[in-house]
Amino acid sequence: MQRVMLTVAYDGTNYNGWALQPGATTIEGMLNHAIHAVTGEEIRVIGASRTDAGVHAYGNLAVFDTESSIPGDRFSYALNHMLPEDIRIVSSRQVPAEFHPRHCHSVKTYEYHILNSEHRIPTKRLYSCYNNMPMDVERMNQAGRYLVGEHDFTSFCNVDSQAETHVRTLYEVSAARQDDMIIIRVRGNGFLYNMVRIIAGTLMQIGRGKGAPEDIVQMLEKKDRSAAGPTAPACGLFLAGYEINVDNAE
Amino acid sequence: MQRVMLTVAYDGTNYNGWALQPGATTIEGMLNHAIHAVTGEEIRVIGASRTDAGVHAYGNLAVFDTESSIPGDRFSYALNHMLPEDIRIVSSRQVPAEFHPRHCHSVKTYEYHILNSEHRIPTKRLYSCYNNMPMDVERMNQAGRYLVGEHDFTSFCNVDSQAETHVRTLYEVSAARQDDMIIIRVRGNGFLYNMVRIIAGTLMQIGRGKGAPEDIVQMLEKKDRSAAGPTAPACGLFLAGYEINVDNAE
Repeated sequence: MQRVMLTVAYDGTNYNGWALQPGATTIEGMLNHAIHAVTGEEIRVIGASRTDAGVHAYGNLAVFDTESSIPGDRFSYALNHMLPEDIRIVSSRQVPAEFHPRHCHSVKTYEYHILNSEHRIPTKRLYSCYNNMPMDVERMNQAGRYLVGEHDFTSFCNVDSQAETHVRTLYEVSAARQDDMIIIRVRGNGFLYNMVRIIAGTLMQIGRGKGAPEDIVQMLEKKDRSAAGPTAPACGLFLAGYEINVDNAE
Repeated sequence: MQRVMLTVAYDGTNYNGWALQPGATTIEGMLNHAIHAVTGEEIRVIGASRTDAGVHAYGNLAVFDTESSIPGDRFSYALNHMLPEDIRIVSSRQVPAEFHPRHCHSVKTYEYHILNSEHRIPTKRLYSCYNNMPMDVERMNQAGRYLVGEHDFTSFCNVDSQAETHVRTLYEVSAARQDDMIIIRVRGNGFLYNMVRIIAGTLMQIGRGKGAPEDIVQMLEKKDRSAAGPTAPACGLFLAGYEINVDNAE
């Protein structure tokens, strides 16, 4: 028996998100299916992040236990042969049997992509949120700095959240323009439901001049979802990657 | 009667290219259909570039004649309501009745996108050619410089070409890296069948160290398709835009 960890990149466009659902095409379902095709075993992977429908990833994580003798670092090749081109195993490796990708210290980075151009660009429509209004990236950066640190993020969390606590620590919330694309980067030790999309929606409002960067302080204090901006659409969101120490997992 | 010019952007992934074909979904077919829906007229647009299946565009051009009283610059709004999201009319305007987008002086710019990263990235798979081998962009630039100017581009042209002459003038052939994407820009006064894709395939070989930049001189001299590199895949090609003087058309 070995526990194998996969680093998984995907285009979320054609999936109903990560988590297995009856009658729906999901990333998890495709992975379970590919592992079955390779090992003959009926396995359910454990995902690190159950991303929503339409959300993309450069590096989500999944682990599974297998009796297969395929070396951990070769699973990426075997599984990529069985997966469609919109899901790629970037790498694979054996991890300690007690390692669990959700019960360990990790730092996660998200990107949110905003196409801020005069006209819509068809080849970018599935991988960004479109907005043609002038947006001041420096104001967005200033607003982002008020979100960095340990805060109660209730205002930046879907009201359906079932998390026991809404306190999380963010290490970076920045915005940068690359030609007509504004990329928001959010790096933190944990994220609430829709948190990055609400941060993106709020920063977009402030970038357009609706409210000031320092308004973030009051939004956090109110601990009320209605204090923050709208939830930006799923297709602009990318789970960029994890920093995780597999061998010293708790 | 007025002649209207459209600037058209599209994601070529789901189309069998620009040119109308029976039983196939094409960009031209979608435009004709949308114009019929708006004006009630049976119209065939005249396209500036009949791009191949899978090729994308930021700014192809099309003209058509209509009895409609819709002002030329309002057609973009009307047509965008009728078109799918992967085709967008960037702008529209009335042009002189004698203007023809293929029988006029124009300068056209193409981009070719190469994903040059360790791993495939699913969200970029439809909009780039993937190559994981180390690629020296400076060598590609040096090679590109030998292509600039007026040359007989027979070696860089599909053997099925029916063009009367293979002499064309290129004003720019450059390569630049943006993170893991290498973007080749080619700007010229006319292009032969597959010319940019053959230039891209040749520059990729030279970037990987197969052949030297100055080999381009001999490739041009040989006037033989087999002297140049392979034709790079369609999905990496973008028709970026036209420089055209509509009012002084010949």
